[in-house]
Amino acid sequence: MSFKLTILGCHSATPRTQAHTSSQYLEMNNDCFLIDCGEGTQRQLRKYKIKFSKIKHVFISHLHGDHFYGLIGLISTFSLLNRNAELHVYGPKGIKEIILLQLKLSKSWVDYPLHFHELVSKESEMILETEKVQVYTIPLLHRVYTNGFLFKEKPQPRKLNMSAIQQHPEIDICDYQNLKNGKNFEYENGRMIDNSELTTDPPKILSYAYCSDTAHTESIIPIIQGVDLLYHEATFLEKHSELATKTKHSTANQAADIAFKSGVKKLILGHYSSRYDSLELFKDEAEQLFSPVMLAEAGKEIIISN
Amino acid sequence: MSFKLTILGCHSATPRTQAHTSSQYLEMNNDCFLIDCGEGTQRQLRKYKIKFSKIKHVFISHLHGDHFYGLIGLISTFSLLNRNAELHVYGPKGIKEIILLQLKLSKSWVDYPLHFHELVSKESEMILETEKVQVYTIPLLHRVYTNGFLFKEKPQPRKLNMSAIQQHPEIDICDYQNLKNGKNFEYENGRMIDNSELTTDPPKILSYAYCSDTAHTESIIPIIQGVDLLYHEATFLEKHSELATKTKHSTANQAADIAFKSGVKKLILGHYSSRYDSLELFKDEAEQLFSPVMLAEAGKEIIISN
Repeated sequence: MSFKLTILGCHSATPRTQAHTSSQYLEMNNDCFLIDCGEGTQRQLRKYKIKFSKIKHVFISHLHGDHFYGLIGLISTFSLLNRNAELHVYGPKGIKEIILLQLKLSKSWVDYPLHFHELVSKESEMILETEKVQVYTIPLLHRVYTNGFLFKEKPQPRKLNMSAIQQHPEIDICDYQNLKNGKNFEYENGRMIDNSELTTDPPKILSYAYCSDTAHTESIIPIIQGVDLLYHEATFLEKHSELATKTKHSTANQAADIAFKSGVKKLILGHYSSRYDSLELFKDEAEQLFSPVMLAEAGKEIIISN
Repeated sequence: MSFKLTILGCHSATPRTQAHTSSQYLEMNNDCFLIDCGEGTQRQLRKYKIKFSKIKHVFISHLHGDHFYGLIGLISTFSLLNRNAELHVYGPKGIKEIILLQLKLSKSWVDYPLHFHELVSKESEMILETEKVQVYTIPLLHRVYTNGFLFKEKPQPRKLNMSAIQQHPEIDICDYQNLKNGKNFEYENGRMIDNSELTTDPPKILSYAYCSDTAHTESIIPIIQGVDLLYHEATFLEKHSELATKTKHSTANQAADIAFKSGVKKLILGHYSSRYDSLELFKDEAEQLFSPVMLAEAGKEIIISN
């Protein structure tokens, strides 16, 4: 099992020549997700040779421009490319009105099924379940209604230990599904064989949490506990913590604090303010509390596997 | 007198790695205009080192995405850069609703004065007059309501021929304005000196016409007659003229036909479809009817002077 995350953009506020606003592409098993969609995301998708047709689900964290101004262009381009497949957009209430108004005024209705899933809950909720993946919201603390997203592989069935099973001729192929589901085997005379003697643990499920934009908030810890990879915004360094508090963003130190308290495996930082000359300062600051820390940069691919 | 046009993007439909959608920056005397604003325009402005603060007026031809999806990002960025100066946006009815809805939902009201001038007329009209420039709409023929824009220097006063004037001591400094305005000089006894003996012609006024997107239509000829530079869309080559007719676009041949019949000085083509490998084919086709022909490309600067 593995998943691959590609950073398309990871800077805050405005697109600049060498700074792309938020967008990520996540491949998890056969599911391909786009997470946020700043202006110019479709160009970044082309640059990194990601097939537009693979994207079935787009998750928008919040309605600040650096996270969604590229969505209308992407939706229009899908249409110009004669897309047939469904597209599902998950985002705050209002996203549908924004997109449909622009399509209406440009007389550019899309020919493919376009579904909006508008989010309003302040509690974490499962918003998508595919064959192998579940996606949950992570309510964040920002100036407007914002969700992060938790992508989790679904639990897999237990693995049959065939050499152990073959020691018990009474166990029939019809029993295998029960064993995979964790049930013990029961003889007709009532004798039991414990499931753990007949199966082994399934592969560990992998998970990825995307948390941007947000002030430092411990309320997310129970939701992201133990994830394999946490992307947490770090707009500022700790020396600008007052600015972080005022704008409801986080510092690198605060992102690391959340990573530590959540027991995540790896932390990746992003959403940097343009005021800093060196991004290494973010890594240095975060590593005082947590390790390992990575820095998001456009084009970076992170593969997480068992 | 001179003006400078910078092409920021000149391809149709969708932004691609090496193809930017429509946007142009025009400096005419001290006035700086942005014409259309496809996705990624703010990045192109930065790339070509055009100061954001110089732009006071943005003209949007029509509400197809490749001509305006970059506007909301630009407006937001102006705000993040703490702009104080007024910004005027001219475009089809609906542009205001699109922008304000997005600002409202992102709780990102701009602090600078933002004025919308929504266009509905099907006749050419003057929509802006600065100290030295007039801007007129050029009603175009497209699938949605579309205007091109004509940028004209205002007529200048006649130039005083001081050596001739000094031959006539009766002419006082108070008479100069009348002479500049073309009036004859009249002695008290009724004798006249013809204005042409005392002044010379003012510098010729320069003009630029932007016509995109449009089907071939001769209705624009009276409006763009004799302009120094005509940008006319050429989405297709003549071999795809049926497609041009169907989509209400033009071929390179049709653009050249308009340039020829309008007696313009130079033609620049753009808005190319992505189906062609070589843009030189557009130039070759247009040059069969008209010369000189230029090809728009991102970063190209064209200076027109007397």
